Amino acid sequence: MKQRKGVFLSLCAIFVIAAGIFIVSAVTSDSQQAKLSASAGQIAQERGLSPADISAALKTYVPTGKYDDYLMFSSGGHSGQVLVIGVPSMRLLKVIAAFTPEPWQGFATGAKESGDLLDGANMPLGTNRELRWADTHHPALSETNGDYDGQFLFINDKANARIAVIDLRDFETKQIIKSPNMISDHGSTFVTPNTEYVIEGSQYAAPIPFSDYAPIEQYQEKYRGLIGFYKFNRAKGRIDMASSFQIEIPPYWQDLCDAGKKVSEGWLFCGSLNTEMATGGFGDGKPPFEAGVSQKDMDYLHVVNWKKAEAVVAAGKAKMISGIKVIPLQTAIDEGLLYFIPEPKSPHGADVSPDGNYIVISGKLDTHATIFGFDKIQKAIANKTFEGKDVFGVPILDFNAVKAAQLEIGLGPLHTQFDDKGNAYTSVFIESTMAKWTLGEPYNSGEKAWKLVEKIPIHYNIGHLVCAEGDTVSPDGKYCVSLNKWAIDRFTPVGPLHPQNFQLIDISGEKMQLLYDMPIGIGEPHYVQMIKADKLNPWLVYPEVGFNTITMSVDPKAAKSGSEGIVRNGNNVDVYMTAIRSHFNPEHIKVKQGDNVKIHITSIERARDATHGFAIDGYNVNLSLEPGEASTVEFVADKPGVYPFYCTEFCSALHLEMAGYLLVEPNQ
Amino acid sequence: MKQRKGVFLSLCAIFVIAAGIFIVSAVTSDSQQAKLSASAGQIAQERGLSPADISAALKTYVPTGKYDDYLMFSSGGHSGQVLVIGVPSMRLLKVIAAFTPEPWQGFATGAKESGDLLDGANMPLGTNRELRWADTHHPALSETNGDYDGQFLFINDKANARIAVIDLRDFETKQIIKSPNMISDHGSTFVTPNTEYVIEGSQYAAPIPFSDYAPIEQYQEKYRGLIGFYKFNRAKGRIDMASSFQIEIPPYWQDLCDAGKKVSEGWLFCGSLNTEMATGGFGDGKPPFEAGVSQKDMDYLHVVNWKKAEAVVAAGKAKMISGIKVIPLQTAIDEGLLYFIPEPKSPHGADVSPDGNYIVISGKLDTHATIFGFDKIQKAIANKTFEGKDVFGVPILDFNAVKAAQLEIGLGPLHTQFDDKGNAYTSVFIESTMAKWTLGEPYNSGEKAWKLVEKIPIHYNIGHLVCAEGDTVSPDGKYCVSLNKWAIDRFTPVGPLHPQNFQLIDISGEKMQLLYDMPIGIGEPHYVQMIKADKLNPWLVYPEVGFNTITMSVDPKAAKSGSEGIVRNGNNVDVYMTAIRSHFNPEHIKVKQGDNVKIHITSIERARDATHGFAIDGYNVNLSLEPGEASTVEFVADKPGVYPFYCTEFCSALHLEMAGYLLVEPNQ
Repeated sequence: MKQRKGVFLSLCAIFVIAAGIFIVSAVTSDSQQAKLSASAGQIAQERGLSPADISAALKTYVPTGKYDDYLMFSSGGHSGQVLVIGVPSMRLLKVIAAFTPEPWQGFATGAKESGDLLDGANMPLGTNRELRWADTHHPALSETNGDYDGQFLFINDKANARIAVIDLRDFETKQIIKSPNMISDHGSTFVTPNTEYVIEGSQYAAPIPFSDYAPIEQYQEKYRGLIGFYKFNRAKGRIDMASSFQIEIPPYWQDLCDAGKKVSEGWLFCGSLNTEMATGGFGDGKPPFEAGVSQKDMDYLHVVNWKKAEAVVAAGKAKMISGIKVIPLQTAIDEGLLYFIPEPKSPHGADVSPDGNYIVISGKLDTHATIFGFDKIQKAIANKTFEGKDVFGVPILDFNAVKAAQLEIGLGPLHTQFDDKGNAYTSVFIESTMAKWTLGEPYNSGEKAWKLVEKIPIHYNIGHLVCAEGDTVSPDGKYCVSLNKWAIDRFTPVGPLHPQNFQLIDISGEKMQLLYDMPIGIGEPHYVQMIKADKLNPWLVYPEVGFNTITMSVDPKAAKSGSEGIVRNGNNVDVYMTAIRSHFNPEHIKVKQGDNVKIHITSIERARDATHGFAIDGYNVNLSLEPGEASTVEFVADKPGVYPFYCTEFCSALHLEMAGYLLVEPNQ
Repeated sequence: MKQRKGVFLSLCAIFVIAAGIFIVSAVTSDSQQAKLSASAGQIAQERGLSPADISAALKTYVPTGKYDDYLMFSSGGHSGQVLVIGVPSMRLLKVIAAFTPEPWQGFATGAKESGDLLDGANMPLGTNRELRWADTHHPALSETNGDYDGQFLFINDKANARIAVIDLRDFETKQIIKSPNMISDHGSTFVTPNTEYVIEGSQYAAPIPFSDYAPIEQYQEKYRGLIGFYKFNRAKGRIDMASSFQIEIPPYWQDLCDAGKKVSEGWLFCGSLNTEMATGGFGDGKPPFEAGVSQKDMDYLHVVNWKKAEAVVAAGKAKMISGIKVIPLQTAIDEGLLYFIPEPKSPHGADVSPDGNYIVISGKLDTHATIFGFDKIQKAIANKTFEGKDVFGVPILDFNAVKAAQLEIGLGPLHTQFDDKGNAYTSVFIESTMAKWTLGEPYNSGEKAWKLVEKIPIHYNIGHLVCAEGDTVSPDGKYCVSLNKWAIDRFTPVGPLHPQNFQLIDISGEKMQLLYDMPIGIGEPHYVQMIKADKLNPWLVYPEVGFNTITMSVDPKAAKSGSEGIVRNGNNVDVYMTAIRSHFNPEHIKVKQGDNVKIHITSIERARDATHGFAIDGYNVNLSLEPGEASTVEFVADKPGVYPFYCTEFCSALHLEMAGYLLVEPNQ
């Protein structure tokens, strides 16, 4: 009791001093403000805030006009989009339309440019079908020397095996590729340390290509997995499929990957599950996947030498399948570019430490973080320290020869991130905690190495976690965010579909502190990357007027100020239109029923935030025209009538007046 | 200086006492927490928080597991959706898919139920076209006796004149109607005090119906506006079009409406602009709309006696057009159910005071709030105190006879809300402020009535504003939110398309205080309503298993646990499937190319937050199955191949294993 009193008195002194600083500064500047400060304690008391709550409130509040320190790029899960979130305020700054049409951004809701982009990523010939949603999983920021460079963002679509490329100059999607041969992915996207390749691992095995039917009974014989390496042309900002390749792998379910960096640069590590090759069939008297996939104590970490794979492709040893070079499994084995390491049990994450030497694996049906050493892996490969081969002939490295450490951290560990002090942070799904533990040499030595430090409870069901730049060569520490799958009772109820929950955790102190619960009521985020905000340098307006946001250059066909008008050739009508506060020019589009109408529209605004929308009533068209942007709308005026068009983005006091009429005269 | 010192000392005393309370309670409970409290001042200093920032942080922070006091239902603008936001935390709790397909919620992305809902609101025959976006503007919560009852939410689509009905038991869209005759709306949705009708006013005039072409030169003769009264059947939770009607009105651009309440119950007040009947034509040598619409100093407030209109319809005096009863303009005039009042100049809002007696008008090209008295309006109508008729013969009430007051409040006033202390709050667009002013009798008397009290600057371009229950018969006071159209420099830049900005303002004290900036990076919210959270009582799971969320009852055709299986009739294949952690039953769907496949799938979960998704790779299908929900997917298996299906909502440690295969055997 004596000790407590002492603590109380000294704490009180600190508090009063701190309070004094505020009040003095406040009073000398503004007595109104001082009043507010003085009432802070009263506010907290009235609102029932604990001291921890007060600290959290002050650590996360970002006043008007002040900027967040970090931006998170979060998958929007099966919304198909990407979320951009500020840290520490945990405010949603933008939803980027990646795969799903989004009218506010004018993404594939009438604009020819983004419509073509999405159409180009429909299901390929033979299975052609329009795709208008996605299950985004793993965003990957472009890297230079293993560090985020703030230029591009890649994200996959698990449901259809596609990849979107987002340019961080304007935060818009520029390319979507439908991966050849693959029907679903999961371990995607990841980049190599200089973004030479964007990497995608398949999820559920299928014949290659998946449109080649084979009965499920021929699973081992005919079904396969794939890892794709898609060459990224940084200057063009595009994936170049002609220089890309895939590697055929066994029909296990490949899970997450991480590219080697620094000492392990040139290598790739991918977890896998279902090395049992269970094929399900529940309902037909067979065990369900959930049982069949979880029988073995060990699955296989896939260790891939992608630099060697590149050379094998260059040497002409790949086969062309569906327009892409594929290295056959046997070639991968023969050329020594694919090895397995036993990994316990049904792992999710494979995460490489900042120095590149440690690969951390956590089996979700295990209680350990298992750490392999890249130095040991190299030695084992050189010495052929194998414990056998899998049924396809892939050599399996001896577990004990490559193991650097194994830590008991809790039930259901999944993914691992790193800080700047030699610590690792692992999400522990089943027990709903985040575990902090120490890495070994050179980060920590002797007694201090490989120790569980602390666990913080989260609410509830943590999947991935992210720490500030926590998967790069130079993590920042400071913050981690627990990406919780369930929110249950954390938020005011909003019906049977509950939000997810991002919990911001301060990792800068001696003890981890929960700071903030952010509901995610717009998709189920899967993975997130967190980048220092000052690494980004986005445009505030487009650099020139008449800008095509797909080619990222001035479109010579864009409508120009002074040359507005309507040009008719037979039943083809070209409208050259400009938009500026507060009118469109022209305001009347008079056409005849059946005309092919093409509207070329350019925003000639230069002011930041002076965005215009362009909607045609009844025509299912809405564009978003940021200052300088040029876009095109194409349609057949097949129905007669009077259809207003108008600006959908409130732009000025006379915004309502920014309108016109599409007049479609009927055929007699 | 002397006075300041005195203030300082007494403030300091209060602060220390308040601090003491915290620290004592903290120390007695947890010394770790006390440490945090003591460091609060240090945190604020390090982060550069002013006393006002500290106060704001403490007033808005909602700790984990604590609930927000209010929910805001915000239009998502041209995203086509509705946003649900907690107050005071300003956290986005959910995006409700209203008009735009949204895969996370499984809204029209493969589920037959919601797909049919959206298809039913496509453009009508003659202009049939698929609509897959909307421009939502004005949410309206259902009311009982003029107060929010928390049961339903209505919202309009300005771009295509549609209305969505959302049930607040599950926060999902249950009905979408395409308004007959109207091509665009704006003044919509509003409800009568007991939700007898959902009201919609047209925006840009067009022929009736709009598919009846008439050249723009025949504007005055052939173009018309409409006000729709759509009968709401509360028991069924549906608009009943057979009991609904519209009133033909002049081709002005009708703007916002508000239904009378208490003393003015039975009446409706709608602003209008473009009483000039400008038709634009910029580019053809004519003045643009922005000039033509803004010539007259007065436009016309439309005063509608809807109870009389109801009687006129019942008496068979309406005409049937496109399947709905329409009261012709001349009938409306003859029957004395439509009057005009001059209103200055290009007004946006028409807002009725809590007691129903004052109608507040603000012309966006004016500097005043103009207030009409309902008592004066009644007297003027009774005495025929008209200042003339408009060109269509609608009687215009004498401005001075109905004016209760006029206040100079600033440049570009738009919309008005109310508090519980007899104050009104008006958004002032051009000067970017929110103005607080006093109402007259019975709220305030003599000198205190009709006075501008205070203005608070906002950042930037305030459109609507919302205060807690601020448009009902019993506003709560406490909070207002400024719905800003531009954010400009308020947030970390995220490209040329900037977020909007919601600024939370504390109106409970003597002075208004800006508390929080919330970026809206997912659409452009237009109007918002704010309801006390405890008025809502949403379901946490569906009440029974096999629930059809459109009929809101158990679907007799829903798949049942124990009766799973596949039934083939010729080339029709019915799959009866259940979903529960962590498997689908059945896991294999084997069909032949060309089969018509119908999957009836039921979530047999009962635990809160145990949602499953159901995606078929490559088939553009994703469902969201909340606990108990039953849904149906229908497709032709027209392409051969192997297509995994899987759960898209992370549901358990074995979520990845919750999968199966759709195997489509090719025709020979």
